[in-house]
Amino acid sequence: MNEALQRGRAEALLVTHMPNVRYLTGFTGSAGVLLAGTRPVFWTDGRYGEQARREVKGARVVVAKGPAITAALQHAASCGVQRLGFEAEHVTVAQRKSLSPHLGGVRMVETSGIVEGLRCVKDSDEIARIRAAIDLASRCFKPLLRVMRPGVAESDVAAHLEFTARKGGASAMSFETIVAGGARSALPHGVASRAPLPARGFVVLDYGVILDGYCSDMTRTVHMGRASREFKALYEAVLEAQLAAISAVRPGVSAGDVDAAARNTLQQSKLAKYFTHSTGHGVGLEIHEIPRIGAKQQTALEPGMVITIEPGIYIPGRCGIRIEDMVLVTATGCEVLTPVSKELIEI
Amino acid sequence: MNEALQRGRAEALLVTHMPNVRYLTGFTGSAGVLLAGTRPVFWTDGRYGEQARREVKGARVVVAKGPAITAALQHAASCGVQRLGFEAEHVTVAQRKSLSPHLGGVRMVETSGIVEGLRCVKDSDEIARIRAAIDLASRCFKPLLRVMRPGVAESDVAAHLEFTARKGGASAMSFETIVAGGARSALPHGVASRAPLPARGFVVLDYGVILDGYCSDMTRTVHMGRASREFKALYEAVLEAQLAAISAVRPGVSAGDVDAAARNTLQQSKLAKYFTHSTGHGVGLEIHEIPRIGAKQQTALEPGMVITIEPGIYIPGRCGIRIEDMVLVTATGCEVLTPVSKELIEI
Repeated sequence: MNEALQRGRAEALLVTHMPNVRYLTGFTGSAGVLLAGTRPVFWTDGRYGEQARREVKGARVVVAKGPAITAALQHAASCGVQRLGFEAEHVTVAQRKSLSPHLGGVRMVETSGIVEGLRCVKDSDEIARIRAAIDLASRCFKPLLRVMRPGVAESDVAAHLEFTARKGGASAMSFETIVAGGARSALPHGVASRAPLPARGFVVLDYGVILDGYCSDMTRTVHMGRASREFKALYEAVLEAQLAAISAVRPGVSAGDVDAAARNTLQQSKLAKYFTHSTGHGVGLEIHEIPRIGAKQQTALEPGMVITIEPGIYIPGRCGIRIEDMVLVTATGCEVLTPVSKELIEI
Repeated sequence: MNEALQRGRAEALLVTHMPNVRYLTGFTGSAGVLLAGTRPVFWTDGRYGEQARREVKGARVVVAKGPAITAALQHAASCGVQRLGFEAEHVTVAQRKSLSPHLGGVRMVETSGIVEGLRCVKDSDEIARIRAAIDLASRCFKPLLRVMRPGVAESDVAAHLEFTARKGGASAMSFETIVAGGARSALPHGVASRAPLPARGFVVLDYGVILDGYCSDMTRTVHMGRASREFKALYEAVLEAQLAAISAVRPGVSAGDVDAAARNTLQQSKLAKYFTHSTGHGVGLEIHEIPRIGAKQQTALEPGMVITIEPGIYIPGRCGIRIEDMVLVTATGCEVLTPVSKELIEI
């Protein structure tokens, strides 16, 4: 971090984005400010004093009397910090303005993605936690299929899934569960609604759990009843694109090239125009992290990055199909972390 | 809104905070930008095109080719907008900076809480939805008690609660469910952990559901086994403070006076030092909205505001108690919306 701070010509960093605070200290609460890059101090409020003293490693814990951020600024000034970095991607214009009266000679310096840059390459402990989250989510998949019958509400499918996940130790889902059946499968973000599952048609199931702070993310598309030959061909085309993107993942390859592998494969079957989003994204303490696996993204993949590969096609009013795994970039290529079969399941 | 814009001397407002977008248009997706205050236009991306055309009322829907916000700026410039308001509490410093190359002569003007100011007084349709969310959450309370036995994990209690809520139509919980037993009840934000419920001691249950977009929020503290005379007295003191605060709620009274009613009551039993947070907050499309019911808050209550009243005490290492209802400010006083008894339940 100190190297990144020097590039931004700041002596210390005010960390206010809670996933970044958690990454650096272990604090799991929802309010607090870390002063990092110098002798680290963490300020929180009365609600979190006891919890912070139990959880925070590597920083002194102080329960601030007033706003934590004001206390942090005063401390930085008293330590002689002249240029104090702040997380420009997470501090609002109004928050930045509210700091001005408390600067006491400290100059605020915009920084970008310093902690995120550290977070995007996972260490072995983080990879173990991510594997555990993925394994829990994967164990929920078969029980989920068992409740799927024509006429059952999408939200009831989600309810059963989330119950299994929670009983398995998930603290929450990593995003609002998507269960989108029939024509609704053409909505790339079709969160589970009260709509009944169709007697015949695709159902997109996209969900993740948070276990021990780390997120998982997976999508499978299943078919209610027998799939027509045409629908089977569409499914195979998406699967082929997904496998092509996975084959492209290795250190040094750009995120854009991985995206292109999926997109070009779909282009061969003239389906690329229905692929209306990016191929994937990093996952860790947050469900969407860098690197973004999208068209022309130049980030070079590095060992230890954990990303999703999730091409999909969405034909308005007809159907949608998406297939998503999480993938670990290794020294020589990649490892698919999601252990669930991708053969088309007909229910 | 136009009046508020004029005060900020802006001709139009770039609405980027999604709950504000939803309030003004009905759009329930997670990405999009609304240009309001002039002829309204809503931009979203390819993932949400179909959904936006179905949901958005009162604005033209456009699927932007590039970033929605750039499209919105270009449109504002082409309409001759000279001063364009933006939501300074929701736009990050980095986002604001990224707009600069696309301004095309438009001047960006910081605004604060324009849409939130509209949202804090609920109309009859919103109040009906909030009632429905509260009623769903309240119906989940008795089934929740039935799974509470010594040794059951807090997270299993949460799992059952969330399953009932989801089956009842909740799209999600409105925040991470708090189930905090024994000494953990002294953590004001003790989200459900793997810890077992104690054979004897308080358990704080604080949860809410999201139904049809609107949040509920309630807390009950129950006791495993027989409560000691001392613990019963602590419970009664918190309940007395909660009732005192509710009695203070009526139009024209300041939020600070409501907070003081709770705090002064606890002071009489020398417990105010253990009341380490505010008395409540507004609730609606978001779980935390204005007005904040805290010490010295000068906001005057108005009919149609929906707030929580939730004093609590937290004695580190021993126990915590919090009791929370949602309350509607009416023309003459208030109506407690949460229909669940507040008598101490011993399990």
